[in-house]
Amino acid sequence: KEAIGRDGEIHAANSHSLSTAFAYADKHVVSPLIREASYIPFLLDYCLNHKIKAVIPLYDPDLSVLAANKKSFETIGTTVIVSDPNIVEICHDKWKTYQFLNDNGFDAPKTYISIDQARDDIQRKALDYPLVVKPRFGMGSIGLFIAENDAELGIFVEKLSRYSNEGVVIQEKLTGQEYGLDVINDLKGDYRNTICKIKYSMRAGETDSAETVNHEALKMLGRRLSQRLRHIANLDVDVFVSDQKKYILEMNPRFGGPYPFSHMAGVNLPKAIVSWLKSETSDVELLIEKNGVRSQKDIEMLMIDLPEKEREVL
Amino acid sequence: KEAIGRDGEIHAANSHSLSTAFAYADKHVVSPLIREASYIPFLLDYCLNHKIKAVIPLYDPDLSVLAANKKSFETIGTTVIVSDPNIVEICHDKWKTYQFLNDNGFDAPKTYISIDQARDDIQRKALDYPLVVKPRFGMGSIGLFIAENDAELGIFVEKLSRYSNEGVVIQEKLTGQEYGLDVINDLKGDYRNTICKIKYSMRAGETDSAETVNHEALKMLGRRLSQRLRHIANLDVDVFVSDQKKYILEMNPRFGGPYPFSHMAGVNLPKAIVSWLKSETSDVELLIEKNGVRSQKDIEMLMIDLPEKEREVL
Repeated sequence: KEAIGRDGEIHAANSHSLSTAFAYADKHVVSPLIREASYIPFLLDYCLNHKIKAVIPLYDPDLSVLAANKKSFETIGTTVIVSDPNIVEICHDKWKTYQFLNDNGFDAPKTYISIDQARDDIQRKALDYPLVVKPRFGMGSIGLFIAENDAELGIFVEKLSRYSNEGVVIQEKLTGQEYGLDVINDLKGDYRNTICKIKYSMRAGETDSAETVNHEALKMLGRRLSQRLRHIANLDVDVFVSDQKKYILEMNPRFGGPYPFSHMAGVNLPKAIVSWLKSETSDVELLIEKNGVRSQKDIEMLMIDLPEKEREVL
Repeated sequence: KEAIGRDGEIHAANSHSLSTAFAYADKHVVSPLIREASYIPFLLDYCLNHKIKAVIPLYDPDLSVLAANKKSFETIGTTVIVSDPNIVEICHDKWKTYQFLNDNGFDAPKTYISIDQARDDIQRKALDYPLVVKPRFGMGSIGLFIAENDAELGIFVEKLSRYSNEGVVIQEKLTGQEYGLDVINDLKGDYRNTICKIKYSMRAGETDSAETVNHEALKMLGRRLSQRLRHIANLDVDVFVSDQKKYILEMNPRFGGPYPFSHMAGVNLPKAIVSWLKSETSDVELLIEKNGVRSQKDIEMLMIDLPEKEREVL
């Protein structure tokens, strides 16, 4: 909002009429569900009518759909801030992520889509318990199990397979210090900066906490990722540093949950996006982080005022 | 803070020097860990030196320790806002919770500490999958598994048992509409009010949401619980309403995560506690909720300013 200045407007779209984001936007609209056929026509129509300059998707299932329809939005003068469909696909499919990282010389946790292959590697001592079992296409830690022995591995793979015909990945469980990176490219996919954040885990009752750090090797890793992937705007990356190795665990081609920690350290990617859209030479300072800034997420309460009519349908 | 007025002070204690609560308190102190022998002597000393009128524990392991030492604090003029140790024990031990609810005629999900007993009941069709397997002493949904068949049940019980010699409970999985109650007693354990909140589950990206409702039967349930338990101040209760039955799932004898929803609806239990401590006749209005108030939890960012010295030890 601050990025856009007094002359701009933020419109929020959500399929649910009680979206938190609506409280912060200038205008909002309740859209069809992403999986409905009317979703893209609805959004195109809305963008045209309201002269929307740019769409920034924040929800994973939205990325694929908008990436696939990027050109249609371009024809009506709306830029969708999203990477190409193949990049979105690489990041969302944990098996493709692994292959991409392997093919490009990055370290990653050993990953399997075949339980037999995993068992073979355990047999020949190339792999050890504990192992992580999770949906091949999944967000965050939803449906994640830690298998500590062969019986558990079998049960977890079977359990997860019941819920999805898209499969399950079995992954080496990493240890080490966890870092979060924001690898920032401009709208053409050219590298701009990598913000490194060390993640602190705190005790019960405490919220997420992270601190920006100047970690040369991780910055180089970010630059290399950017050049191989050529994503658009933000790439949210989880890294474990252990025994001198930098294991890439996950990549998310959008503003991720850890972005606000970079923002607290002086980075203003929304403002940079606005200046790129205006074809202004982006003020380089917008993407420079201050190191040693530690912040925490905390909870605040928001009251929802519903118009009487909406209240009745609930 | 608002409850205490200009003349009072809030002191926050935490064993961690980076507690979020410190940002909101007038003064704060880093305490020993709750399990250390020096914890209670430290707190007694601190309360005496700073003329602390009342201590409100918010963290589960703290409740038992402070409940056991309530009298020592009384002798130095400090009131600990905590229920008696047996009440804290009933609430923290899921097996004792079940027995208490059964003995007092409340509906509760069928609960087992013996896998053989559970299997017997499944055999004779008195119990059905899915079943919830979780630590007998546990907070929230940490270490919770849903067993959908006999093989899973065996694996989950075994897995959880490896981590705890305090055991595991097997519980019927409830469905139905979920409500949260704040059952409020005064400092003598006398009933004051029950605030009923309907919990809404929302889609990904959305935060917790709840609305205060006037639900006569649940208010009666709260009154009955209060009279049987005679807890102090707040009792945070999870209820599932299904087929006309009101199943009590969990009870927490403290301010719980859903309390802020009651506060948003005009309830001010902290202020009531302050007036009770001053032996004022509490303003009845402090505990009356406005119904139909819907609110949401949202995330805000908090920057942590560390003195240079502390920063170095991190």
